[in-house]
Amino acid sequence: MKKAEIISVGTELLMGQVANTDAQFISALLPGAGFGVYYHTVVGDNKDRLAQCFKKALERSDLVVLTGGLGPTEDDLTKNTVAEALGLKLVIDEETVKDLENYFARSGRKMSSSNMSQAYFPEGAAILKNKCGTAPGCMINKSVNGISKIVVLLPGPPSELKPMFEDEVLPVLEKDAEEVLKSKFFDIIGVPESEVESRLSDIISGRTNPTAATYVKEGIVTVRVSACGTSDTASALIEKDAEVIRERFGKNLAGENGQSLQETVVRLCEKHKLSVASAESCTGGMISELITSVPGASNVIRSSVVVYSNEAKINILGVDPELINKYGVVSEQTALAMAERTAVLCGSDIGVSTTGNAGPGTLENKPAGLVYVGLYFRGKTAVKECLIRGSREHIRRRVSNTALNMVREAVLGIGEDNDR
Amino acid sequence: MKKAEIISVGTELLMGQVANTDAQFISALLPGAGFGVYYHTVVGDNKDRLAQCFKKALERSDLVVLTGGLGPTEDDLTKNTVAEALGLKLVIDEETVKDLENYFARSGRKMSSSNMSQAYFPEGAAILKNKCGTAPGCMINKSVNGISKIVVLLPGPPSELKPMFEDEVLPVLEKDAEEVLKSKFFDIIGVPESEVESRLSDIISGRTNPTAATYVKEGIVTVRVSACGTSDTASALIEKDAEVIRERFGKNLAGENGQSLQETVVRLCEKHKLSVASAESCTGGMISELITSVPGASNVIRSSVVVYSNEAKINILGVDPELINKYGVVSEQTALAMAERTAVLCGSDIGVSTTGNAGPGTLENKPAGLVYVGLYFRGKTAVKECLIRGSREHIRRRVSNTALNMVREAVLGIGEDNDR
Repeated sequence: MKKAEIISVGTELLMGQVANTDAQFISALLPGAGFGVYYHTVVGDNKDRLAQCFKKALERSDLVVLTGGLGPTEDDLTKNTVAEALGLKLVIDEETVKDLENYFARSGRKMSSSNMSQAYFPEGAAILKNKCGTAPGCMINKSVNGISKIVVLLPGPPSELKPMFEDEVLPVLEKDAEEVLKSKFFDIIGVPESEVESRLSDIISGRTNPTAATYVKEGIVTVRVSACGTSDTASALIEKDAEVIRERFGKNLAGENGQSLQETVVRLCEKHKLSVASAESCTGGMISELITSVPGASNVIRSSVVVYSNEAKINILGVDPELINKYGVVSEQTALAMAERTAVLCGSDIGVSTTGNAGPGTLENKPAGLVYVGLYFRGKTAVKECLIRGSREHIRRRVSNTALNMVREAVLGIGEDNDR
Repeated sequence: MKKAEIISVGTELLMGQVANTDAQFISALLPGAGFGVYYHTVVGDNKDRLAQCFKKALERSDLVVLTGGLGPTEDDLTKNTVAEALGLKLVIDEETVKDLENYFARSGRKMSSSNMSQAYFPEGAAILKNKCGTAPGCMINKSVNGISKIVVLLPGPPSELKPMFEDEVLPVLEKDAEEVLKSKFFDIIGVPESEVESRLSDIISGRTNPTAATYVKEGIVTVRVSACGTSDTASALIEKDAEVIRERFGKNLAGENGQSLQETVVRLCEKHKLSVASAESCTGGMISELITSVPGASNVIRSSVVVYSNEAKINILGVDPELINKYGVVSEQTALAMAERTAVLCGSDIGVSTTGNAGPGTLENKPAGLVYVGLYFRGKTAVKECLIRGSREHIRRRVSNTALNMVREAVLGIGEDNDR
């Protein structure tokens, strides 16, 4: 495997205005094209520091991907800095000039003189077209002290970077790959990380190929298994571990290979021809948003309701006001009634509901983080009490994952009955 | 200003499984405590490479914050590596042992022997309690070659890192701060980045204190103005620029100082005692989710509907089926009807709707990215056609921002009338 690293340029990253999702995206794809990612570096819009980081990267890595700093504004200095460090001149590309003129004509916007800087590239670079914006990227092959290096410059906005990297960079890198690193991811829900690790200690400890490791996010423990070799060897090594993990965690295995929990739920519901509707109070639409983020969700979800106020729970959903009075809005009983009512209102097989306090502060004397998740599925019901510590955002994400997992478990129960 | 940098440890970051939101969070807060962040580095769970990065960081920065690698698992090697590099022994902390025992007793889980490694710290370190998990952090003051350095070790999971950093680290750093860097952020919607820059060229170009720069995300251009000095001097410098920006961008200014568009909308609606309901097709609940992510949203949103299928638009919302037949579900007319109907159904002053194709693929012969956003506000209506290139996720985010901005503009119109 060759070595790669990513340098992301932008003071906005160092100021904490945005997370470095570009590096994440690229990192997930490079190993499959034969490059292991060893470092991410973020550096500001500062020529000296960028030059220093770039030279260090060029020393220790075969491929250096730079993101950001290709825009038309004054602080966009990546092309200049890289060209200078590599001893290359910047030259104008006439085709890019035409593309820019067309782009501005089409969008009816005036082209400012600063936009013309985007048509200059280090000499000899292959230009990467930008289908979603004005800043093209470029790819440079250059021998440095007798060792051939690849340098890739990509625009910072993720919506521009992603298609450019996938369509124009990755195929070029893949063509030359001999050895690749493949990874597979196994998401386990309902088991703490330390227990996952001790139950998998034989595959986690003391091996070099394949390797396995765990990490946890929003209540889901992910086991990553990675193997090196030709594409076929690597796949076979991973599959052996995959069988062990499937056998040991069974129903707690919520998704494989980066398939999100919501994707698992949509695919399972599709398979069993089941529809889902949510009735969301404290999650405010997040469960429905997660389900509809999956392409093809229209086979599974027709409608959902956000019932934030008590009146909405009563008037739109038809929850009995006596029930809310008696048990409180943050209660098992209300959650169950909401789940059943949304299934009826939306004409869905499954109804899932949330009611609770996402914080900050207390509600009906219930602490922040206390949430009830209700489930209705063809006459059967289930409810879970969650008490989650953390921010409003964290509580809502955890609760949404719990709700999606309850749908998954309910559908899986059905799946087993049918299979027998 | 002193110099800081952040080293995040975790192969999962280099594999692209998660974005480095820890570095983002810390970076946003450090300048206000007198530390400028100059680098982020991500390195894998590898002792040699981590040691190398840590030594380099210690050379060039006054404060080094390390995140991740404090868990109980075998690949958690941050404490060992840092202690070794600083020439410190790891010693057991009896209070942490007690805390761990209590934590496991309370949560009814078995404490595995590997958990005990979490009670060891570099000698002399101040221990940072973990209120949301088992891995405590620590803070080390150490003189290196006669220069005093601060090293902070924090757990990787954001829900554990955030309260620990805010409650236990930041106050200590702030106490000693003489010079701070303050920043203010101005979000401009509806103006392209290059135009924002040229209209602000006098405050962006050729200055060193304050400085200003732009970046763009999901259709919103953010102008960051930063100033250095004592707390009061910095604020005054920023306020001068703020007035310029407010004057030049007026109604296109969607939010200040990191206040999100949804927060702006909630605060505006609160101020004018207006309620909002959404009827979402392609955004699937995202608008409602964004609004309810703001604490206090219950003053503004009572309910919303997700109407993904045509039947739901007709049966739940009461859109005329003839209208959908005549104009298509992806049309101005359907968007407007949805906006009006949701305002009526949810008893809200404002109704906002989305109908379109979030992709991938075509729908009713409409291309991916074509979406209509409808708005109803006390008998008046408005509609916007969006044609957005990019992923399903990107399209949904951009459309949700457009919808929120239409609500903002509608409320602002009212605000002006009242003010006169």
